[in-house]
Amino acid sequence: MGMVGGGSDAFIGAIHRLAANMDGQIELACGCFSINPEISVSSGKSYFLPDDRIYRNFEEMFEKEAMLPKDKRIDFVTIVTPNHVHFKPAMMALENNFHVVVDKPMTYTLDEAKKLKAKVSETGLVLALTHTYSGYPIIKEARDLVKKGILGKIRRIYTEYPQGWLSAKEEDKGNPQAEWRTDPKRSGIAGCMGDIGTHAFHLTEYVTGLKATRLCADLNIFVPGRKLDDDGAVFLAFDNGAKGVLMATQIGAGEENAIKIRIYGEKGGMEWSQADANTLWLKWPDRPAEMLRTGGGYLSAVSKHNTRTPAGHPEGYLEAFANIYNNFSLTVRARMEGKEPKPEWLDFPGIDDGVRGLQFIETVVKAGYSDEQKWVDIS
Amino acid sequence: MGMVGGGSDAFIGAIHRLAANMDGQIELACGCFSINPEISVSSGKSYFLPDDRIYRNFEEMFEKEAMLPKDKRIDFVTIVTPNHVHFKPAMMALENNFHVVVDKPMTYTLDEAKKLKAKVSETGLVLALTHTYSGYPIIKEARDLVKKGILGKIRRIYTEYPQGWLSAKEEDKGNPQAEWRTDPKRSGIAGCMGDIGTHAFHLTEYVTGLKATRLCADLNIFVPGRKLDDDGAVFLAFDNGAKGVLMATQIGAGEENAIKIRIYGEKGGMEWSQADANTLWLKWPDRPAEMLRTGGGYLSAVSKHNTRTPAGHPEGYLEAFANIYNNFSLTVRARMEGKEPKPEWLDFPGIDDGVRGLQFIETVVKAGYSDEQKWVDIS
Amino acid sequence: MGMVGGGSDAFIGAIHRLAANMDGQIELACGCFSINPEISVSSGKSYFLPDDRIYRNFEEMFEKEAMLPKDKRIDFVTIVTPNHVHFKPAMMALENNFHVVVDKPMTYTLDEAKKLKAKVSETGLVLALTHTYSGYPIIKEARDLVKKGILGKIRRIYTEYPQGWLSAKEEDKGNPQAEWRTDPKRSGIAGCMGDIGTHAFHLTEYVTGLKATRLCADLNIFVPGRKLDDDGAVFLAFDNGAKGVLMATQIGAGEENAIKIRIYGEKGGMEWSQADANTLWLKWPDRPAEMLRTGGGYLSAVSKHNTRTPAGHPEGYLEAFANIYNNFSLTVRARMEGKEPKPEWLDFPGIDDGVRGLQFIETVVKAGYSDEQKWVDIS
Amino acid sequence: MGMVGGGSDAFIGAIHRLAANMDGQIELACGCFSINPEISVSSGKSYFLPDDRIYRNFEEMFEKEAMLPKDKRIDFVTIVTPNHVHFKPAMMALENNFHVVVDKPMTYTLDEAKKLKAKVSETGLVLALTHTYSGYPIIKEARDLVKKGILGKIRRIYTEYPQGWLSAKEEDKGNPQAEWRTDPKRSGIAGCMGDIGTHAFHLTEYVTGLKATRLCADLNIFVPGRKLDDDGAVFLAFDNGAKGVLMATQIGAGEENAIKIRIYGEKGGMEWSQADANTLWLKWPDRPAEMLRTGGGYLSAVSKHNTRTPAGHPEGYLEAFANIYNNFSLTVRARMEGKEPKPEWLDFPGIDDGVRGLQFIETVVKAGYSDEQKWVDIS
Repeated sequence: MGMVGGGSDAFIGAIHRLAANMDGQIELACGCFSINPEISVSSGKSYFLPDDRIYRNFEEMFEKEAMLPKDKRIDFVTIVTPNHVHFKPAMMALENNFHVVVDKPMTYTLDEAKKLKAKVSETGLVLALTHTYSGYPIIKEARDLVKKGILGKIRRIYTEYPQGWLSAKEEDKGNPQAEWRTDPKRSGIAGCMGDIGTHAFHLTEYVTGLKATRLCADLNIFVPGRKLDDDGAVFLAFDNGAKGVLMATQIGAGEENAIKIRIYGEKGGMEWSQADANTLWLKWPDRPAEMLRTGGGYLSAVSKHNTRTPAGHPEGYLEAFANIYNNFSLTVRARMEGKEPKPEWLDFPGIDDGVRGLQFIETVVKAGYSDEQKWVDIS
Repeated sequence: MGMVGGGSDAFIGAIHRLAANMDGQIELACGCFSINPEISVSSGKSYFLPDDRIYRNFEEMFEKEAMLPKDKRIDFVTIVTPNHVHFKPAMMALENNFHVVVDKPMTYTLDEAKKLKAKVSETGLVLALTHTYSGYPIIKEARDLVKKGILGKIRRIYTEYPQGWLSAKEEDKGNPQAEWRTDPKRSGIAGCMGDIGTHAFHLTEYVTGLKATRLCADLNIFVPGRKLDDDGAVFLAFDNGAKGVLMATQIGAGEENAIKIRIYGEKGGMEWSQADANTLWLKWPDRPAEMLRTGGGYLSAVSKHNTRTPAGHPEGYLEAFANIYNNFSLTVRARMEGKEPKPEWLDFPGIDDGVRGLQFIETVVKAGYSDEQKWVDIS
Repeated sequence: MGMVGGGSDAFIGAIHRLAANMDGQIELACGCFSINPEISVSSGKSYFLPDDRIYRNFEEMFEKEAMLPKDKRIDFVTIVTPNHVHFKPAMMALENNFHVVVDKPMTYTLDEAKKLKAKVSETGLVLALTHTYSGYPIIKEARDLVKKGILGKIRRIYTEYPQGWLSAKEEDKGNPQAEWRTDPKRSGIAGCMGDIGTHAFHLTEYVTGLKATRLCADLNIFVPGRKLDDDGAVFLAFDNGAKGVLMATQIGAGEENAIKIRIYGEKGGMEWSQADANTLWLKWPDRPAEMLRTGGGYLSAVSKHNTRTPAGHPEGYLEAFANIYNNFSLTVRARMEGKEPKPEWLDFPGIDDGVRGLQFIETVVKAGYSDEQKWVDIS
Repeated sequence: MGMVGGGSDAFIGAIHRLAANMDGQIELACGCFSINPEISVSSGKSYFLPDDRIYRNFEEMFEKEAMLPKDKRIDFVTIVTPNHVHFKPAMMALENNFHVVVDKPMTYTLDEAKKLKAKVSETGLVLALTHTYSGYPIIKEARDLVKKGILGKIRRIYTEYPQGWLSAKEEDKGNPQAEWRTDPKRSGIAGCMGDIGTHAFHLTEYVTGLKATRLCADLNIFVPGRKLDDDGAVFLAFDNGAKGVLMATQIGAGEENAIKIRIYGEKGGMEWSQADANTLWLKWPDRPAEMLRTGGGYLSAVSKHNTRTPAGHPEGYLEAFANIYNNFSLTVRARMEGKEPKPEWLDFPGIDDGVRGLQFIETVVKAGYSDEQKWVDIS
């Protein structure tokens, strides 16, 4: 694995390394960790990399790595830069025959996302997108149960992601996470909706297997002087006639990362919340609610494949993250060995989810400030 | 207390009697309990009423009661009939100088509500509306804390009321509660939004002290053949610039009566859920969340006035309901004795809340099926 | 109903009146509410009693009431005085042919309890003991399910009742509740174990249907200068071979009334906690845990008989309390009418539970301070 | 890192590797993974080890590794075999100048534990014991807060660890985990108490900073034919006068790994449960309870040092486990570089905790079946 971004001063890069390390299948072999070359070098050293695998920029990295012998060069690259620096390294990686892991949202614009999709199709390479929440083992169970029809036809979905960390103007206080996320030049046209709305949107489509076709949105900028939405609510209409509400906010003072989904079908309901990440609720009109737990012997094979410990030992965010890396690496290895990946290995967010995310962003921003058009098609 | 409706076959009438009995301050003295005279008589007898105080209809009841000597006749009447039979008995009660308790929504139409308001103003009589949820002691604490400004300026509100009991077509299975609530002739122009959306709307305005000025709505009829909305979601805009999402559904399969409210201000957040009715959460950006509990020594006087047991002995729905009756009866007694009621006695939903409820219903129905107009003024 | 104790300055008397009022089947008709005659009279007046039914002491009350015509005199008396004044009024009530409700523990000594039992047997009158917690509807479901064998043979029981209100020396701060409960002259030989240990012990035997035969105890007085135990832990051995741990404390700083029971059998486990009083957990080795909820359509008839509202409207402590009164009054009425009470009406704590409570108290005190004898028989 | 045990058929070995991998600071370099050489070799290969670093037994491993040049040989060994094979490899590792990580309980007997302690003292090498639960970041906060005195003098402690996985006779069904844990020859004199009672005991002493001096115990074998305790309850007396109850069971049907601790002092209470592993409750007599959360900005430095993600991203069991490895490896590296480890690096269970665990085991077994002696000294 090579890394673009993720210097020792960055948040999400460390998460990626923890997740990639966990299963002992992936080794950080090179990287350019910062636009500041000093930080890049010191970071690389602290990750135990030899000097000649610490690069000054990603262009150099791809060039030099591509020339290394096959058993020495990296198999894939992980891109953990701000949104505006996703497309170029991803495209260059694909052009140089490297597989790609990229943080969400996949690109800065929908147009870039479509170009990346074309390149992935053309090359046959694998791209993984780190929508972490669909990596939780019990979320995979949820998806499996919906697919099996235990809830009947889905009617009503509530997805929410309240955060509170941008309640005050953190971007003026030297918080680099807040800075780039609230800056249209680096974040894109959406703030809250791009950063966490896309997570909620992905989780919704992932678990239900439905596609949202239209939306009606109310986006807000609550903190004075901020340039991008820090809050929003969305009505969703799905291809099967179901309706959804998606709520995301970064000014929910006192909230952590409380992503949650509730799904109601003709036969029953389902609930999951990251605050209790190893529990899946099934609710029934005429019998007691059931509490399914990560690691339970009664769970499906796909859920077990994504579980590392027996029931009752909490699996956390890093394990969910590591599931994306693990399935991606199993898939890449199979492809490299000319084998067909098992279906459960292919279960990680990818290029199509990336395009969906940008479609959501562009539609929700279009709809969210309009006082005129109520429903806008997602496309 | 006299009663209109509430025969031994009805649901909400029994709740009203339990709530009215609880504090030993109110006595059921007469009633017409059903349009079926046999049920009315047998019901009255089972409530230990003498034959001459069991009436055939409310017209007779008001006429005869009004002629009884002051120390024998009732002071107020409770109306627990379906929505289309709220206005006439309420109006006639006021005309005969009786105070009124009426179930929500207050009337069948906004026009009726306004007429009732005019009559209440004219007579100076007291009308209580049984929006139970604002009767919980910890909800009174919540309102008090918001008023004191501990959350700062309110920005974002989520109110939800998911139920599942109408997931199937119960109105065809002989369930009388389902029958009238899904029947436009008895329920009015709204189904779910009238039945429980109004509760959520009232709770929102009660706790925050804000007024919603505009809304954008998506109403749905999910169960085939049903004539009124059984689900809906609403964006709300408030007079101080805050935004809200109000979600109410009766097809949330497996849900009970999970009304919940979350409020976020500039300084902190707040959460309450009926499933944990004695707990109020305060959430802070920079210090641990706090869990306030009914009966806690640190609570305000208004909360304690509405609490019957020490902390840790759960107060339930009936106690919340009884708080409306208790405060109403304290107010009525004070008025009858020519005294000024204490401020905490006046803290029960009344005529203005009734008008608000009908304004909400008429606006949300107007907005909820429209694909054109996004935001509609509430007035 | 007549009342001994329960003046307007007392805590538990008010609870008894609320519970007795609730269902509209019981009327407070007379009482002697305090050893202070002024408080007794003012209390009686505030309860709307006529002057001639407010008595100076219980001896006078029983004498005079016994001479009233049958349709005017009370049917039963409620005794809500401190423990040392339970036996005499209870005995005198029985001697005067009145049924009895008495607060727990039933008497000051085991000897008194046995005498009361002999008198109840002799007279055929009904005595109810207000161990509130077995009045919760879902606790009745729990008992029913254990009886049906869904857990298999019971092996392990944990019952706990942590409170924190006596963490400091409240008895020196003018708190009358604390004063008499920590005073051996009024409370008896046990403090915490008599006050709340008996509740935990009753709940354990009630739900499991087992009898504890031996115990090993560790009683403590943590607050300096206190004369009775304010904390204790007990191992229990049951007649079927099961083992229990019973923990009760009043110095659990910050705890409210967190009574909780967990039962494990060969086939599954069960859990209930007053903090979530309407929920019963069933836990299974090989399938998801189930959450049963008060009012659920799938519950047994006995549970429904003790439920007043539909699922999702929380029933609280007062409703549990009222269930004792309601079942007691249904039983008394049946007996007075020469009818056989229905089995579910007889489901309230009575004279045998009262004797058990005193057996527990005397045994746990004997065992609790001994460093020598480990296990002591309960008899 | 070298590994003794932990073949691809074992449970806890995989956990150790996941935990050791996580932070990218530790590399598995050699091992003898099974007494079955085939499994050892195939396991080693699957962990990407070269053939010459996969050994047939630990004797060979220590001999050969000790002869490797310093920059190639391992720094420490991890022992993840059943209890009866802890002492010999640990001792041999120390004798060959390797640091040691060993699973709990540290040894088969107290005598072995003491010998190991002597050797550690003699060599100055570092030994870590994987009592995972004290590795949770919020548990470190708990310890820190107790040390700071926020609860005042500790009075009452409840620690529990209910599991249900041995409710049936799993050891007869081919479950290797159950087999050795219920076999006195491999597990030692205790079953449940050795396996999970020691975890509860360690957690209790770790968080409170107290030492238990005496205990009274009730050990049980509920599953017929089993040879070691599968359940037990213990009263503890601490050096400051506090009392504890420690409950551990493996026949709590339906329970997962529900370790939980509650501590009450003169000023307040504290609660933590693995089922909600990122939450620490502080409870107060006179103000709202507070919920502290892993990653909260208000937490202490020691807690933050052991945290990998921002608040709201659940940290799980593996992260707690990895904290032991991380602190151990930071300490070992410092020692190898002749530097003084930072105090927070030294915060992992070690040789003294191992001796304590065996003291607990030997005392609790002595006390647990006796009907005569009530309290037994721990020494």
